[in-house]
Amino acid sequence: MENISVLGAGSWGTALAIVLAENGHRIRIWSHRQDQVDEINTQHTNAKYLPNTTLPMNLVATASLQQAVDESDMIVVAVPTKAIRSVCQQFVPFMREEKLFVHVSKGIEPDSLKRISELLAEEIPSMLRSDIVVLSGPSHAEEVVLQHPTTVTVACENMRAAERVQDAFMSSYFRVYTLEDVIGAEIGGALKNVIALAAGAVDGLGYGDNAKAALITRGLAEISRLGVKMGANPLTFAGLTGMGDLIVTCTSVHSRNWRAGNLLGKGYKLDEILEQMGMVVEGVRTAKAAHQLAAKYDVAMPISSALYSVLFEATPPKQAVDALMARMKKREIDEMM
Amino acid sequence: MENISVLGAGSWGTALAIVLAENGHRIRIWSHRQDQVDEINTQHTNAKYLPNTTLPMNLVATASLQQAVDESDMIVVAVPTKAIRSVCQQFVPFMREEKLFVHVSKGIEPDSLKRISELLAEEIPSMLRSDIVVLSGPSHAEEVVLQHPTTVTVACENMRAAERVQDAFMSSYFRVYTLEDVIGAEIGGALKNVIALAAGAVDGLGYGDNAKAALITRGLAEISRLGVKMGANPLTFAGLTGMGDLIVTCTSVHSRNWRAGNLLGKGYKLDEILEQMGMVVEGVRTAKAAHQLAAKYDVAMPISSALYSVLFEATPPKQAVDALMARMKKREIDEMM
Repeated sequence: MENISVLGAGSWGTALAIVLAENGHRIRIWSHRQDQVDEINTQHTNAKYLPNTTLPMNLVATASLQQAVDESDMIVVAVPTKAIRSVCQQFVPFMREEKLFVHVSKGIEPDSLKRISELLAEEIPSMLRSDIVVLSGPSHAEEVVLQHPTTVTVACENMRAAERVQDAFMSSYFRVYTLEDVIGAEIGGALKNVIALAAGAVDGLGYGDNAKAALITRGLAEISRLGVKMGANPLTFAGLTGMGDLIVTCTSVHSRNWRAGNLLGKGYKLDEILEQMGMVVEGVRTAKAAHQLAAKYDVAMPISSALYSVLFEATPPKQAVDALMARMKKREIDEMM
Repeated sequence: MENISVLGAGSWGTALAIVLAENGHRIRIWSHRQDQVDEINTQHTNAKYLPNTTLPMNLVATASLQQAVDESDMIVVAVPTKAIRSVCQQFVPFMREEKLFVHVSKGIEPDSLKRISELLAEEIPSMLRSDIVVLSGPSHAEEVVLQHPTTVTVACENMRAAERVQDAFMSSYFRVYTLEDVIGAEIGGALKNVIALAAGAVDGLGYGDNAKAALITRGLAEISRLGVKMGANPLTFAGLTGMGDLIVTCTSVHSRNWRAGNLLGKGYKLDEILEQMGMVVEGVRTAKAAHQLAAKYDVAMPISSALYSVLFEATPPKQAVDALMARMKKREIDEMM
């Protein structure tokens, strides 16, 4: 049994806390909202994020970040990417001993172009963290709480830390693989949201399954090209955190990024979409980062570039997709490199 | 302009004949059914296979296989995999000069374990064929006739032959890449039907998008493992004929193999399903071949094996899928090799 705290009580943080609580660990979930804490502790629900779900009795919420961090040895960071630095800055001053950190967020910080584990390493002094482990893979929270079979990967250069996280999460319906390639897991997880926006736009334009499959395939190719230049293992992109997560995000109705892209393809403007969604659409921010990464690493990322021009340069989606389709080199494998 | 004949007037053969006719080539399409030939020539429709589609006026059908082969320099073989040998045996005796052959079928011959290009090479004497080119990729016929953007790959060891086929088919909405890896293109195209049956079964069991994405990902990994042992380029499986075609077949409502698998997951028996579909379900035959190939090349193919046991050994689908999910090795990349 481990003492584990999950920071952030959105749908994914809560779903993971349920998995851990069912495995018999001592679990705290932190939310900055007292009403949500009370709802979890008294009604055992988190209705805004996971409607129709009853939480295990041993899943206890707290509004005290210090308590959540102090009382546990393993800290699962499940706050939105944008909030990670500020949350770290709140709890680090109170920390007295080192913890194992697991992060489950997907994104790249624009401008700094840091991966999430790099943000965490910057914000948490090295003597206060034994390791930083990434948990990623095709895993909609809505399905995990239904105990639908789900597979994820935990990545860390230190395999013993990855195995400790694997042991904590592994259950009959939640299967956990380990991986050493942190860069590949993080790049695949972040960039798939950009491709999902583009796939949604292709669907919104009514272009069909052939076009979407081609886009997903070429999308993974450009993610891999970038990742390999950044130091990732190319095999990672053929796995759960690469291809697996990309497929689920591009084809599932649960995917926010796909839904936002779909509205884009139907002609809505970005600000209308963000207002209508009322939730974070991580891919929009990541599209900016992808555009910057492509330039920094001198990698051709035609799909990410096309999406960037639609989102931020007012290119009509149809024009951008048609230009992508017409972009043609003679040999498929040359294009992949 | 080329003189091209398409053998087989099913949905895919007809869709490809339309693409070629629109490109201005002189096109013959062969069917052994005189009523279908008459319908194409007089009403310019092929309603059974492509409802609501008007065929170009310059697409001419013939019931004479000899005429179809004689009058053209490029022969597109679009008959069901099972019929390829017998159709070859009908036209080869009449052939007087060499032709370029293109095949667009997907499958592996059970027992002999030959790929389609190997069947053709066996049946057509080498002096009667300049080259055999494979055309494959994510391409539902129903979408091609709507001129939805579609990308395919043509594979041949002789790049000049592949480029000739590329030039013949390429149009604004039908984009053609070339590839040298015939083995990879054929193995990816054939085996994806097996994974699509399994993906359909996962959906039929109601296991959700997380499980399906994991299955597709691990499915491509086992296809790649086999293909590489057979001599394919591993990069091919990350391309349109591998990942691209696999995604479209596992996620599109147009896919017969997915639909058959879905019924399997819902508890129907194989013979009931085949009767209900009334069309060829290529993946059932290929599942047998995959089972034999896994043994012959000593490659672990857990998904294909599980499907085989459901189809031919009466294992309940739920039991097979649950066993797959529980099958666990510690490290993701070890599993991929």
